[in-house]
Amino acid sequence: MPPRSFPLSRYLPILRWGREYDRATLGADLLAAVIVTIMLIPQSLAYAMLAGLPPEVGLYASILPLAGYALFGSSRVLAVGPVAVVSLMTASAVGEVAAQGTAGYLVAAAGLALVSGGMLLAMGFLRLGFLANFLSHPVISGFITAAGLLIAAGQVRHILGLPGGGETLPGMLAALAAQLPATDPLTLAMGGGVLGFLYAARRWLKAGLVRMGLPPWPADMAARSAPLVAVAATIALAQGFALGARGVALVGEIPQGLPALGLPALPVELVGALLLPALLISVVGFVESVSVAQTLAARRRQRIDPDQELIGLGAANIAAGLSSAYPVTGGFARSVVNFDAGARSPAAGVFTAGGIALAAMFLTPWLAALPQATLAATIIVAVLSLVDFGAIRRVFAYSRSDFAAMAATILVTLGIGVEAGISAGVVLSLLLHLYRTSRPHTAVVGRVPGTEHYRNIERHPVLTRPEILSLRVDESLYFANSRFLEDRIAALVAGRPEVRHVVLMCPAVNAIDASALESLEEINRRLAEAGIGFHLSEVKGPVMDRLRRGDFLSHLNGRVFLSQHEAVCALSLESGPPAPQPGSSSAGIRDGLSFPAS
Amino acid sequence: MPPRSFPLSRYLPILRWGREYDRATLGADLLAAVIVTIMLIPQSLAYAMLAGLPPEVGLYASILPLAGYALFGSSRVLAVGPVAVVSLMTASAVGEVAAQGTAGYLVAAAGLALVSGGMLLAMGFLRLGFLANFLSHPVISGFITAAGLLIAAGQVRHILGLPGGGETLPGMLAALAAQLPATDPLTLAMGGGVLGFLYAARRWLKAGLVRMGLPPWPADMAARSAPLVAVAATIALAQGFALGARGVALVGEIPQGLPALGLPALPVELVGALLLPALLISVVGFVESVSVAQTLAARRRQRIDPDQELIGLGAANIAAGLSSAYPVTGGFARSVVNFDAGARSPAAGVFTAGGIALAAMFLTPWLAALPQATLAATIIVAVLSLVDFGAIRRVFAYSRSDFAAMAATILVTLGIGVEAGISAGVVLSLLLHLYRTSRPHTAVVGRVPGTEHYRNIERHPVLTRPEILSLRVDESLYFANSRFLEDRIAALVAGRPEVRHVVLMCPAVNAIDASALESLEEINRRLAEAGIGFHLSEVKGPVMDRLRRGDFLSHLNGRVFLSQHEAVCALSLESGPPAPQPGSSSAGIRDGLSFPAS
Repeated sequence: MPPRSFPLSRYLPILRWGREYDRATLGADLLAAVIVTIMLIPQSLAYAMLAGLPPEVGLYASILPLAGYALFGSSRVLAVGPVAVVSLMTASAVGEVAAQGTAGYLVAAAGLALVSGGMLLAMGFLRLGFLANFLSHPVISGFITAAGLLIAAGQVRHILGLPGGGETLPGMLAALAAQLPATDPLTLAMGGGVLGFLYAARRWLKAGLVRMGLPPWPADMAARSAPLVAVAATIALAQGFALGARGVALVGEIPQGLPALGLPALPVELVGALLLPALLISVVGFVESVSVAQTLAARRRQRIDPDQELIGLGAANIAAGLSSAYPVTGGFARSVVNFDAGARSPAAGVFTAGGIALAAMFLTPWLAALPQATLAATIIVAVLSLVDFGAIRRVFAYSRSDFAAMAATILVTLGIGVEAGISAGVVLSLLLHLYRTSRPHTAVVGRVPGTEHYRNIERHPVLTRPEILSLRVDESLYFANSRFLEDRIAALVAGRPEVRHVVLMCPAVNAIDASALESLEEINRRLAEAGIGFHLSEVKGPVMDRLRRGDFLSHLNGRVFLSQHEAVCALSLESGPPAPQPGSSSAGIRDGLSFPAS
Repeated sequence: MPPRSFPLSRYLPILRWGREYDRATLGADLLAAVIVTIMLIPQSLAYAMLAGLPPEVGLYASILPLAGYALFGSSRVLAVGPVAVVSLMTASAVGEVAAQGTAGYLVAAAGLALVSGGMLLAMGFLRLGFLANFLSHPVISGFITAAGLLIAAGQVRHILGLPGGGETLPGMLAALAAQLPATDPLTLAMGGGVLGFLYAARRWLKAGLVRMGLPPWPADMAARSAPLVAVAATIALAQGFALGARGVALVGEIPQGLPALGLPALPVELVGALLLPALLISVVGFVESVSVAQTLAARRRQRIDPDQELIGLGAANIAAGLSSAYPVTGGFARSVVNFDAGARSPAAGVFTAGGIALAAMFLTPWLAALPQATLAATIIVAVLSLVDFGAIRRVFAYSRSDFAAMAATILVTLGIGVEAGISAGVVLSLLLHLYRTSRPHTAVVGRVPGTEHYRNIERHPVLTRPEILSLRVDESLYFANSRFLEDRIAALVAGRPEVRHVVLMCPAVNAIDASALESLEEINRRLAEAGIGFHLSEVKGPVMDRLRRGDFLSHLNGRVFLSQHEAVCALSLESGPPAPQPGSSSAGIRDGLSFPAS
């Protein structure tokens, strides 16, 4: 491992990998960069369209941001750039504050990248990578499936040559259904053809090429260049048959050259409106990116640092904001291609950026004749791999509460929108988690005869004394469950007028927060008012240390015992022999009374 | 205990206590009602003023809502009505949508009660009482302290006879400081006198009367009637010396009679604007009320049902909304008085309502000459008991993260407002809780020589094998910590190229949610790609049952062992004798290999 003591190299991973850079690494990185560039050109154009932006903005988002990530990111193979889900979220957020096609829309998109980049940087420096934990896997998975469906549904209009409309899945489907008679046959033929070609290439091309004797790796790369082939072929068709004049929507004139650099002219009130969407985009992008990076790093037993990833993605988005682009993140498919193509260092990202810059300078005149239907077909085929109905089934089988959060995420995303959907999922999964842990498992325990073990009286034949109530709680005590404990003890005592002592057995209590401490004080006070002693047993060391910081122990109307058995022996001795309890299953303790009290 | 099988009696506790009602209970309830009425009249007027409402609205809030609670509430002694904190929150919420003194303000206040009542009812029927767990004790305590300070600061203007102004503590103090030269001496004399009298009565009157030979209970009741004495005395003064004409602000004409009944004419968009404040008022009111009710119930070994309390408070607030009143909840001081005065059933609340109704019908003409300064002094003395600086100190000593949530609540409440304050506290305490549990305690373990116990290698001299990495995790696995586990295992494996097997020891894992399951699948996949086996040991029964529902176990590139020792023995046998590790502290396992594999 490289030395971790060099301070700057924590924030500038390039200082680590740069020192080891040699000719072999250069060759591998260059090859990977060429392959990723070929894949990224059509993707960049398509995702820009999905975000409601002109195609060149997609190219801009694949130049400087890649260099920004290469300087600061901790993954050696993550390929950042425009991705489908973030493009959809950008369209939704920017569409709220500006009209598509206006200069304000471009400014807001760049501003969104800048705000999101600033948030990611801040989260990285504050080491807030744990914030991504708010997104449970079922919520992410449900969100991505729903986003995939929304994206695909939104592109169908380009395949049919219709104006479309609607922001939600039902709205889009209704608009398409109403417009269906106006479908443009030429556009449909073109779009349907590309869709079929891309689907077939994705599904069968690699296997077919392998059967024809090609090694798996070149076969895979050939299959992945299918979108570029479709782009080239449909440009040729559109030019050859003057399809633009026949009603097929083309991409149109694209400005040639590199993006203008500079701060977007962002009004302050716009920044306020973009804060929540920027946060959601940051967190969703970060979670996707970090799981891709982690998966790939693990294959080579490398590591990524989630907090450093935040800084890398933050730098990439700030670069996007400063170069007239829009929010970017690490993409799954292109990172896998980069990895498989043998990229060994973030320099591959810099070379890819160079490739896209060349495309922006010299290729754009050719792209004017690109049919929009081709890009739409590219998007549809790409996002259908995001839709994972199997995950829904698996989560349903495994856990109803996880399924509830997932279903809410999907339905709200499809029916209301992406921001509402992801927010609903986060809030509901937090609520359900709190609900679960707010009712921890507790058991009234008694002594297993002939031993010093105490077990649940409902599961084992155990000995109890009527005047001692022993309750074991199987969870750390904190604000969400402290009131439950108050209720539980109040209920148990209310039904047992003979109880003189309550012993709380704490072997599974790893922490007691201030709320739980107050609840214990309250329980102690209430029990004392009813003339009942309150005792603790088997309190862990760190918990005991913390209890000593307050004055709870001095108020305690009872004692803290090292073991449950010690507690029962000592309290039994104090209360004397138990009164006969006819018809009761409880029995006095006859042995073990000689256990030494500490 | 009354039979719990009678279905209606769950939602109508009156069917339980009504059947046992007798002459003795009636006498006790009537006496308590008289005493609570005497206490409640000045409080009702004062808290209405605090809420920005005319004084009669305070009386209305103490009539029908009490009857509503008596029918549905589960506490036998809780006294509901207007309280300080909820009055402040009402002023803040209603002030956002209507101007004080307008008819719209009255409608919005009644509407707020109605919306809050509907929410409480819904939460009760859906058994969502656990939602109150979102408020940790330090957040509630900090919020109430801050609210007490805000309330007291807001009343000082009435004592000084100034117009005042400002919504935040700094704003109020700045306005007072600027206006100070315009202080009205007559108002100050009157207000200051009442303040001193009430403070002295609260502080010394009971003890003084007891020293003079009065039994404690009548002494306490006498002390508690001090506000009524102040009201009567200052009315007499104001009338005798025509203080109103001399610039002392009086309460003024109060409509005589009972409130008009009916739905407030609430526009739909107003309901939307009141939703969040109504939720916050509902939760804060519920938490306060339920803790008072629980404390008092415990003294008599009675029980209250938190979900039924929601229904009782919901009914009270709906009654408030339908009778031109404003949100109510259970008050601490008056419930204690009710309890101490011997109230035995919710009928005492009905009798109190009758007393206040009589006051509204016959007493109001006398109240026109009541100086506002008297009410302000009543409020200030009452709310100063809410301010608890000691709690801040105790929480600081006990837990820094609880203190952070508390400090944020206090500062935001004082500096921005009550809704922002309580929201900030809730969000921050949730964040801090997730942060804490997102980094559970884990330990790499080895075998204690000569035993089958496995302990932390950093704390105990233990035996390990270089090719087996055993990790114990001391927390349930769920979405907030599943990524941490991925990181932790990736880091451990990245630094130990000799590892062939990872064993996750799970004795403290009470649950594995769908996110954690996916993380385990991911860990398994990544380890498999790196040629490492992944095993579990000591998985609890219910967790194992759940794992069997999915297909994780069939993917597992390893096994599930009943005990950690079994795991290490079996894996050691497979990998053969350990390679010599010069300079390493780890050692092969020499005994225990005969442990039977299951």
